[in-house]
Amino acid sequence: MSDIAVILPDGTELSVEEGATVRDAAFAIGPGLGKDTVAGVVDGELVDKETPLHDGANLVIVTDQSDEYLDVLRHSAAHVFAQALQRLHPEAKLTIGPWTDDGFYYDVTSVDLEQEDLEAIEDEMRDIIEADLDIERVLVDREEALEKYADNPYKRDILEDEAAGDDELSFYQQGEFEDLCKGPHVESTGEIGAVKLLNISAAYWRGDEDNDTLTRVYGTAFESESDLEDFLNMREEAKERDHRKLGQELNLFAIDETTGPGLPLYQPNGKRILDELADYAKQLNLDAGYDPVETPHLFRTELWKKSGHYENYVDDMFLLDVNDEEYGLKPMNCPGHATIFDQQSWSYRDLPVRYFEDGKVYRKEQRGELSGLSRVWSFTIDDGHLFVRPDQIEDEINLIIDNILTVFDTFGLDAEVALATRPEKSVGSDEIWEQAETQLRAVLDDSGIDYGIEAGDGAFYGPKIDFAFKDALGRKWDGPTVQLDFNMPDRFDLTYTGEDNEDHQPVMIHRALYGSYERFFMVLIEHFDGKFPFWLAPEQVRILPISDDQLGYAKKLQYELGDFRVDIEDRSWTLGRKIREAQTDRVPYMVIVGGDEEADGTISVRDRKEREEKDVSVEAFRDHLRSEYDEKRPEPDFLADEE
Amino acid sequence: MSDIAVILPDGTELSVEEGATVRDAAFAIGPGLGKDTVAGVVDGELVDKETPLHDGANLVIVTDQSDEYLDVLRHSAAHVFAQALQRLHPEAKLTIGPWTDDGFYYDVTSVDLEQEDLEAIEDEMRDIIEADLDIERVLVDREEALEKYADNPYKRDILEDEAAGDDELSFYQQGEFEDLCKGPHVESTGEIGAVKLLNISAAYWRGDEDNDTLTRVYGTAFESESDLEDFLNMREEAKERDHRKLGQELNLFAIDETTGPGLPLYQPNGKRILDELADYAKQLNLDAGYDPVETPHLFRTELWKKSGHYENYVDDMFLLDVNDEEYGLKPMNCPGHATIFDQQSWSYRDLPVRYFEDGKVYRKEQRGELSGLSRVWSFTIDDGHLFVRPDQIEDEINLIIDNILTVFDTFGLDAEVALATRPEKSVGSDEIWEQAETQLRAVLDDSGIDYGIEAGDGAFYGPKIDFAFKDALGRKWDGPTVQLDFNMPDRFDLTYTGEDNEDHQPVMIHRALYGSYERFFMVLIEHFDGKFPFWLAPEQVRILPISDDQLGYAKKLQYELGDFRVDIEDRSWTLGRKIREAQTDRVPYMVIVGGDEEADGTISVRDRKEREEKDVSVEAFRDHLRSEYDEKRPEPDFLADEE
Repeated sequence: MSDIAVILPDGTELSVEEGATVRDAAFAIGPGLGKDTVAGVVDGELVDKETPLHDGANLVIVTDQSDEYLDVLRHSAAHVFAQALQRLHPEAKLTIGPWTDDGFYYDVTSVDLEQEDLEAIEDEMRDIIEADLDIERVLVDREEALEKYADNPYKRDILEDEAAGDDELSFYQQGEFEDLCKGPHVESTGEIGAVKLLNISAAYWRGDEDNDTLTRVYGTAFESESDLEDFLNMREEAKERDHRKLGQELNLFAIDETTGPGLPLYQPNGKRILDELADYAKQLNLDAGYDPVETPHLFRTELWKKSGHYENYVDDMFLLDVNDEEYGLKPMNCPGHATIFDQQSWSYRDLPVRYFEDGKVYRKEQRGELSGLSRVWSFTIDDGHLFVRPDQIEDEINLIIDNILTVFDTFGLDAEVALATRPEKSVGSDEIWEQAETQLRAVLDDSGIDYGIEAGDGAFYGPKIDFAFKDALGRKWDGPTVQLDFNMPDRFDLTYTGEDNEDHQPVMIHRALYGSYERFFMVLIEHFDGKFPFWLAPEQVRILPISDDQLGYAKKLQYELGDFRVDIEDRSWTLGRKIREAQTDRVPYMVIVGGDEEADGTISVRDRKEREEKDVSVEAFRDHLRSEYDEKRPEPDFLADEE
Repeated sequence: MSDIAVILPDGTELSVEEGATVRDAAFAIGPGLGKDTVAGVVDGELVDKETPLHDGANLVIVTDQSDEYLDVLRHSAAHVFAQALQRLHPEAKLTIGPWTDDGFYYDVTSVDLEQEDLEAIEDEMRDIIEADLDIERVLVDREEALEKYADNPYKRDILEDEAAGDDELSFYQQGEFEDLCKGPHVESTGEIGAVKLLNISAAYWRGDEDNDTLTRVYGTAFESESDLEDFLNMREEAKERDHRKLGQELNLFAIDETTGPGLPLYQPNGKRILDELADYAKQLNLDAGYDPVETPHLFRTELWKKSGHYENYVDDMFLLDVNDEEYGLKPMNCPGHATIFDQQSWSYRDLPVRYFEDGKVYRKEQRGELSGLSRVWSFTIDDGHLFVRPDQIEDEINLIIDNILTVFDTFGLDAEVALATRPEKSVGSDEIWEQAETQLRAVLDDSGIDYGIEAGDGAFYGPKIDFAFKDALGRKWDGPTVQLDFNMPDRFDLTYTGEDNEDHQPVMIHRALYGSYERFFMVLIEHFDGKFPFWLAPEQVRILPISDDQLGYAKKLQYELGDFRVDIEDRSWTLGRKIREAQTDRVPYMVIVGGDEEADGTISVRDRKEREEKDVSVEAFRDHLRSEYDEKRPEPDFLADEE
């Protein structure tokens, strides 16, 4: 038997026998690891430990110490749910039950479930966990599998579709329950420390609105009750901060039936925040030597055929016919920027050329999947494209990473960084990919940033570095990326004249600082719970006159604080109500003025953290606001906490 | 016979007999005017003086002292061209020959014309003018007219289409020549002081690409040879300043075959200027109490049906199908802004609410009519919409006019202002129109602005004030407008709660400061001949080191002038060539540094007006730039002219 080589996370190769499984490889590394192996990640996919390896596979061994362990545990919890459901509702038909980022779901049908039914199922699940049933993988031949699912068209669908080529199908069994499933799972139901069923919603078979409607039950599971409790508290808090809820309460944005789904309209409060974000990104870009450009939203699809996006993106594109030619709304800005680069001739001395544009793009998501600002049809990317010489790649990537981390820092967001490597479908030679991945790895290593590997998750045209936002509740959201691209310069035949007077091809780098403004805005709304830093707050100061007698003084103050966004509360309310309203609106600073303040020419300052100080001079307050704004400080800090 | 009333430009009514013509009305005003009458403007349309008037007609009498006289004269010049053409090329078939803003054209066919043929025709035209032939209006019955044009399908087309209802057709005759024509014309060919044939291009019958191709001959005519000479000089200068030519030379914008016609891409130099323009408009808007909003480009067409634009705009809209629903790219921003207004409930105390957005809109012009930035498919309006109480209209219009005139002033553009009144197709009651027109008239009268009346040129939903830009070459371009709208608030059922606690309908005001950025940018490029004021210039300062030895010092200076857009000329050219290049690129300031300057820590400053000064301190220069930028001064003025 010949040997094959698998690639371990640190880039080293491990030689194993052909046909070796994940567990075999783990044993080859060491018997301790072999014994502890729960599952594996092969080429980015979480798989059962019995999965055979292929030559060149990227392999990560999963133990109960790995991040992926929780996914495995939740996958088993989904089975425990299904088992409990079938005990209580034998008529229920199962379809699919995957793990998710924060738990699992199972789509079922032929059963009438309400929220109040979940408790009984949850109790049954706890019994199953208590019983600590072994979870065993069983291989079943196709005939038998089809027979088992004679009554279940969904499972038969899977057998005839995803599993069409397999003669033997893997089932997982625990007690009387079995389920067609690729795994992986934990060893026994007792490993699940805590479970909770969360809610019920509707879903479509295969996510397609034209298919049967199913009942989706969401749940979650953890290693311990205390982890579950933390999660549930966080979830409660997240519900309070939901950007759709706050978006409406704070008049940030709206999505309207008549104007169209997935197409947000920004109200003044939202637009003021977006404008501050745009100004900040623009300043970072200009300081980093980027040039602004602007492209329209409508293009001939010729452009996308030229760039190669058409094949990959056409289903997501909004297409239209103009004078019998096909046009499309842009799903991305890069081909437009490549076209602009191509308008001039360039010398090696001119490079790098760096373009940026806040470009609104349009991608047709399934209507049912649209949600607030997190899944939309129209969104704006703070898009940058660099045209660089090969010898400039590392310096440029370094600069970009610096800028991205500056952004994370400004907003108090933690970064999770990963290198996404060559996917199965990709263009370009092995050498170029090898070189590109090595360069990105070198930059990351030199930077000292802690990063993971997302094997096979690169763009089809080159590898990328993915940044995820970790918000105040510890949740992760897709963030900006940096992508190396050797493909588009070739397709657009972009050139510059080298020192040797010959034509050379530049390398393109795609990057963003925020990613999409919509996504980033959503993250910020929830991260800050709508309590935006002073520099971002749509209303920065609200002046509360104690009575209408101080309206004149209030207007004078508004004028004196004219560099900032200052409103006057002129409704005839009690001061208490005025304060509560400003608090609800999350205004960073309230300026309270009564007869005394007017007489002294001073103000009382209160912040949304309920700290207050009297006899403040307008100049001192204004000077403070200037520096709080310029330094983009995260919290109103004119007032100190009482000792 | 009963009397009818016509309305004169000053708003007074003149009573004339039913069936009275333009000339009759002129005689009724005074015999002198009657004798001098050349033509009339009835409800905005320039017509023959024999045209009968209807009750309520808006009438302007045209004499040889009127602005419109030149149009009449050019119309006659078109006939003189046609007569000359038929003398020299009897086979030529005539189609239409209207006057234009700067001359006339005649579309002809069945004749092979080249640019070099024009001189002979021009000579023949001069003979006809010399002969001072009377131009006479003759009424011909339909049968006879059809017979005259037995060989000319285009004229028959006109007879059967535009003139379908007329039993008697008006022809104009001069010598052996006659032409189907509604007029008006001057009395005799001798009134034409100077003519010039300019160029030949292709055109389509009725402007439709599917119809026959015709030959269009452009010419112009004036009252005097010196006027013609001025025009030709201006035209030569305009050709040099053509924004399409400068746009390419200065890398401002590009329109690319692959990305699509009429869809400009802005290169960094162009985008920097657009950004300065946008920042300026934004500051004016914020200072005037406007709130920023943002809307997408794609909307369900439901929205346009609701607003009433669909009926009027559908042919110009880019439409597409999404999930079997009709969507369209927005041709205007107002319905989106009305939707945003409708998201909140408003009290009379909250009004006026003023929204602004730099909104890119899409209108499908005929492909053949697209040209540079002046006729495009995508353009950005600096669009503002106000929701006001009826009692706030005049104050708000006043504020808007102030802002618009500030903009004209900043760019050194003269304004031509006109009040456009109710068009034939319109919505809303007589009272509302009467009131709206009276209000606009009152504001204009109070402001002391000189304005004309464009009778019947208002929007279908309300009257408007049109501002035209007059550029450095004396040419006029469509500029911003202010429009009163009683229609859309009704269609969107917009309300606010009045002091009486009842629902009331706000009035909408539509306004822009620039109009379209594309149009305005085009005007600025040509107005300034690419020599943009310092604050707008994409490259504000270029540092020219005399030799490579000063590159380090140049970089230090670039850093010290870091608030501005400063580049270094680092090519190994002679200083003379470096200066010429900066001059060609129209850079406002050159900073020249050699060994002496480096040793002294000073600079030599040269501006694009070729003035120069040595031994300048960097601080003094930087301070000057700051104030030149902040005050948006039109010309580099650090250096004074030598006495």
